[in-house]
Amino acid sequence: MNESEEPAPGVAALQRRLADFAAARDWQPFHTPKNLAAALSVEASELLEIFQWLTPGESGRVMEDPGTAVRVRDEVADVLAYLLQLCTVLGVDPLAALTEKIERNEERFPPPSRGSHSME
Amino acid sequence: MNESEEPAPGVAALQRRLADFAAARDWQPFHTPKNLAAALSVEASELLEIFQWLTPGESGRVMEDPGTAVRVRDEVADVLAYLLQLCTVLGVDPLAALTEKIERNEERFPPPSRGSHSME
Amino acid sequence: MNESEEPAPGVAALQRRLADFAAARDWQPFHTPKNLAAALSVEASELLEIFQWLTPGESGRVMEDPGTAVRVRDEVADVLAYLLQLCTVLGVDPLAALTEKIERNEERFPPPSRGSHSME
Amino acid sequence: MNESEEPAPGVAALQRRLADFAAARDWQPFHTPKNLAAALSVEASELLEIFQWLTPGESGRVMEDPGTAVRVRDEVADVLAYLLQLCTVLGVDPLAALTEKIERNEERFPPPSRGSHSME
Repeated sequence: MNESEEPAPGVAALQRRLADFAAARDWQPFHTPKNLAAALSVEASELLEIFQWLTPGESGRVMEDPGTAVRVRDEVADVLAYLLQLCTVLGVDPLAALTEKIERNEERFPPPSRGSHSME
Repeated sequence: MNESEEPAPGVAALQRRLADFAAARDWQPFHTPKNLAAALSVEASELLEIFQWLTPGESGRVMEDPGTAVRVRDEVADVLAYLLQLCTVLGVDPLAALTEKIERNEERFPPPSRGSHSME
Repeated sequence: MNESEEPAPGVAALQRRLADFAAARDWQPFHTPKNLAAALSVEASELLEIFQWLTPGESGRVMEDPGTAVRVRDEVADVLAYLLQLCTVLGVDPLAALTEKIERNEERFPPPSRGSHSME
Repeated sequence: MNESEEPAPGVAALQRRLADFAAARDWQPFHTPKNLAAALSVEASELLEIFQWLTPGESGRVMEDPGTAVRVRDEVADVLAYLLQLCTVLGVDPLAALTEKIERNEERFPPPSRGSHSME
């Protein structure tokens, strides 16, 4: 899906670009952590709205419709934008936070053992 | 905040790691776009829950409390995890989608001109 | 499902009881419309969380499991509590608002006509 | 706010009217508990969206603007509509569920004692 390891720009560059965008429009007073968390939640619901009446099968084919595909990409961008802006104002590194979470989950939810030579 | 341009691992590496994690546990049948969009929305609300009764000022100081800081990082990781998994199953590149969105918004919301001697 | 037309207490009585409950605990300063709207959204997501990984068929049988039924009733109560408290602080009559909405929707979405020999 | 104890129609009458509305349009197949819970959550977020950038004080004055007041009433109606439809398909009595919840909370969160001889 993503052929190259990391398309430019990366997450940190996008965070700076979003911060510059907000600063140029004097939007920082609105960007409290509380407001950004509310906006993130609202955008995540707008993404869910696309899927709310679809069957599981239909939900797997949303990108086949060009108009819906545009809408999905637009809402994904909005969710990521508010998540990154929230991380910036809180001083949270989102990629490091997720890496740590995956490592904790690998311990919490060990995969079922596979194969005939299992000791279990 | 993020000193290096792109800490390893990048977004694409995290997407692969999340996909491997789900595959090792046979969770793919649950990971329809609809279910992942619902889970993303639920996790975004869990992040909002941390802030819901705080004043704007209090919301700016949440990371000063170690227990709350852990909770914030954990919910940020959950939101990002479901967003990336949704992007994987839909074939959406989240960083490209956000880059395009910022470019559209730079045209839609031109910054106010600053000062009468501006060259613009 | 609801055999009697209106079990006591009604909506207005519950609104007063919730207001008294909050006043007795000095919670009114927290109950701004913004905070109550955030709390309502968070509780609606907690209700959605119960269903997020279920198939459509499984979601129709949630009340057969006693533990899940308790959880569903509890989250329904939370959503209704915050909706009613929000209506109280905003001065909105929720039943009147819904009645008007249904009337508007009956005009917006006329039902399909049924059969050429209909008497209507 | 609500002068009369219970304006007609009551909750049960609205539940029947919503069920008839959906049946007349053959919408029942879409109204699984899972889909209704998702729609409820989406509408609660649309209500939150009205408040997301407002200060606490501004959020207390939203009904002074006629256009915003219409939008608030409309979103309140949508949240209540999906909550009632969800309760209908699940067989949950929303007023009874809330009454029980308030009774549990009165035990869980006893109000601070307000004795007449308190020095505080």
